[in-house]
Amino acid sequence: MAGCFVPGARAASRCDELGEPPYSEAAGRLTRRFLTPAHRAALDTLSGWMTEAGMAVRLDAAANLIGRYEGRTPAAPALMIGSHIDSVPNGGRYDGPLGVTLGIDCVQALRDAGRRLPFAIEVIAFGDEEGSRFPAAMTCSRAVAGRADAAMLAMRDAAGCSLADAFAAFGLPQTEPATAARRPGELLAFLEAHIEQGPVLEAEDLPIGIVTAIAAQKRLAVRFTGVAGHAGTTPMRLRRDPAPAAAEAILAVERICSGGEAGLVGTVGRMSAYPGGFNVIPGAVEISLDIRAETSAARDAAVERVLAEIDAIAARRGLGASSELLQALPECACDPALIGRLGVAVQAVGVTPRRLPSGAAHDAMSLAALCPTAMLFIRCAGGVSHNPAEAVRADDCALAALAMLAFIDILERDGLEQGGPEGLE
Amino acid sequence: MAGCFVPGARAASRCDELGEPPYSEAAGRLTRRFLTPAHRAALDTLSGWMTEAGMAVRLDAAANLIGRYEGRTPAAPALMIGSHIDSVPNGGRYDGPLGVTLGIDCVQALRDAGRRLPFAIEVIAFGDEEGSRFPAAMTCSRAVAGRADAAMLAMRDAAGCSLADAFAAFGLPQTEPATAARRPGELLAFLEAHIEQGPVLEAEDLPIGIVTAIAAQKRLAVRFTGVAGHAGTTPMRLRRDPAPAAAEAILAVERICSGGEAGLVGTVGRMSAYPGGFNVIPGAVEISLDIRAETSAARDAAVERVLAEIDAIAARRGLGASSELLQALPECACDPALIGRLGVAVQAVGVTPRRLPSGAAHDAMSLAALCPTAMLFIRCAGGVSHNPAEAVRADDCALAALAMLAFIDILERDGLEQGGPEGLE
Repeated sequence: MAGCFVPGARAASRCDELGEPPYSEAAGRLTRRFLTPAHRAALDTLSGWMTEAGMAVRLDAAANLIGRYEGRTPAAPALMIGSHIDSVPNGGRYDGPLGVTLGIDCVQALRDAGRRLPFAIEVIAFGDEEGSRFPAAMTCSRAVAGRADAAMLAMRDAAGCSLADAFAAFGLPQTEPATAARRPGELLAFLEAHIEQGPVLEAEDLPIGIVTAIAAQKRLAVRFTGVAGHAGTTPMRLRRDPAPAAAEAILAVERICSGGEAGLVGTVGRMSAYPGGFNVIPGAVEISLDIRAETSAARDAAVERVLAEIDAIAARRGLGASSELLQALPECACDPALIGRLGVAVQAVGVTPRRLPSGAAHDAMSLAALCPTAMLFIRCAGGVSHNPAEAVRADDCALAALAMLAFIDILERDGLEQGGPEGLE
Repeated sequence: MAGCFVPGARAASRCDELGEPPYSEAAGRLTRRFLTPAHRAALDTLSGWMTEAGMAVRLDAAANLIGRYEGRTPAAPALMIGSHIDSVPNGGRYDGPLGVTLGIDCVQALRDAGRRLPFAIEVIAFGDEEGSRFPAAMTCSRAVAGRADAAMLAMRDAAGCSLADAFAAFGLPQTEPATAARRPGELLAFLEAHIEQGPVLEAEDLPIGIVTAIAAQKRLAVRFTGVAGHAGTTPMRLRRDPAPAAAEAILAVERICSGGEAGLVGTVGRMSAYPGGFNVIPGAVEISLDIRAETSAARDAAVERVLAEIDAIAARRGLGASSELLQALPECACDPALIGRLGVAVQAVGVTPRRLPSGAAHDAMSLAALCPTAMLFIRCAGGVSHNPAEAVRADDCALAALAMLAFIDILERDGLEQGGPEGLE
């Protein structure tokens, strides 16, 4: 439907467009890891869309693509809108990119209406949020928030490539990602639109919702070490096999997290036995842990119980066990004044403003260190995400774009300092 | 010690020589998979050693290296001596190659003594026994025994390369491995010397032993399928996660095989979660199974119990489960007459002839379809194998070479048909 620009609906179809090669590393599925050729292809196309929407485009030192739509005065502070464009392996099309394409649609709607605001708008496409290539997540939004560090650059992907080398191979100075940091005064606020990735909005028949806070999470790598040996000649009683130990640990994660409070979840998404031969008793087994809860205290209590179980399993089986904390993110509240304004905007487009927490981490967590943040959730089919079956409705996305534009109107009218109306929920 | 040739001791040190690059795919460890550059390098060096020992060398259509030492008459039937030269990932130096270098030492001792026998001797280096690159084992000895098939050629390695393509890349006609098959009359017998890979000889303070039979084994790939999803937003009670199901299966394998008869062992050497993201509930988990017992009946009873458990686990958790039988090998007895002759040979070098079964599979299992087979076990430190710590004593290897030469003497004197002395154990 060339020539027929429906803000939001176009944003969703653009995510579909980005779901195939060259924007994916593999045909028939979407895998777009940080600093890969698929990432580069997505940057090129998004850059074109941003330019077409009237933005000045640049790539920052941490491989974030930023399109800027100036306000009435040059160099005004900006409302930043965006999300990430990397995906988990074999992931969905909307988790991340929809927040970027919605931002582009909002700017294009303003430009088409000939409107300039008292603030600039910047649309940002973060290069890495999922941590799907390197073992820590939100590398890019942390860099923007001034939280990049040297240790980050030493991280290695599964092929042994360091983040520093990956930046260099992408044509970026490998020592400079920290220079992507923004000064606090540069950004008025950060608004992230994102699919819910959970079942709440669908269950309540609502197209969009307002995020109150993001859950606390920890990522750990756990390693059991035993004695490798021949699968045929080592009697069962003489084995020191880390595989059954890891199995017990996986079941302990499930048991402990199932018995906890509502928001507690624990996941083992990776498991590997080394050396990995059919006929070799493993010498080591590694599993990943991702544990989240509504509060850091609840999360840490669960992590401690899991680690105590792991030590007990290893001791009982005469094995070694170690764990490495790869990431710890506290719960992160969205800004109360912005939550209020977003509620007014959602109501303005005819939707009951539903507030809900996020079990998933988002780039808004990083940006909260720099400026007030707000998040708009969009209903997704069955709550399914990180999966090719991930789906959104075009009319939900159109409502999301309208709510975002209404939010921008409210910011223009009321500014940021006055605090918004409360008690709308 | 140039000029000082101690048969057997040299065989062991030659295995050490083959334990480093270019004979390994990685520095600091031994990984030599079938049809890799490391395999090629080993062939080149072994070919030189065979030539130096007086053999005519050829590479057969299944990438087996064969050195032939003619008997008194040309084209006489041969005693074949050998083993495999591939390794498991990060394996030991003697598992396989020692049986080849011992064969070369035996021929060199005969040649140095100016002896020709009424039969030829062929020393063979099988290219694949471990199945470390492709999902089935003993590809090469099965080809020699006339048991190669088209399905074998379609097998793919972890990188997606088919065996047919791997042969072609190695410079061999990809459709011809079946032509490596030998006619029954060509081979008088097959003798394989191999490290024990278990603790029995060491426990009884014996340097070498005589194998009676090889255990029955099955290899299976098991896959649990559930629903992939976001690790943060899917409540524990709504998950259909294959990881805890695989964990229960791993523990069932351990429990069932630990409770079985003495020779029963079960191993999970590989495990993978897909798609494999830290923050993704897996959609599928695959584990490998290797189950062995002294008889096919005992093995099959254990496999059936494990598969029944797997079905029950999947049903209880609302998951899919499937298993694929990749390989089934019945127990395989060595030839009684050759066992007797090998016993006389072992006694002749001053060692009590200890008979024992093999929990590990060996190329001799394949050759048993073609000719009578015998196996000589060599003590290894701690019974450790498939591990860089694998070790042998040079004096044990020297005794092994002497026993093999004595065995050849007995074959020359008594022939093969008369049956050997029994009751020596």
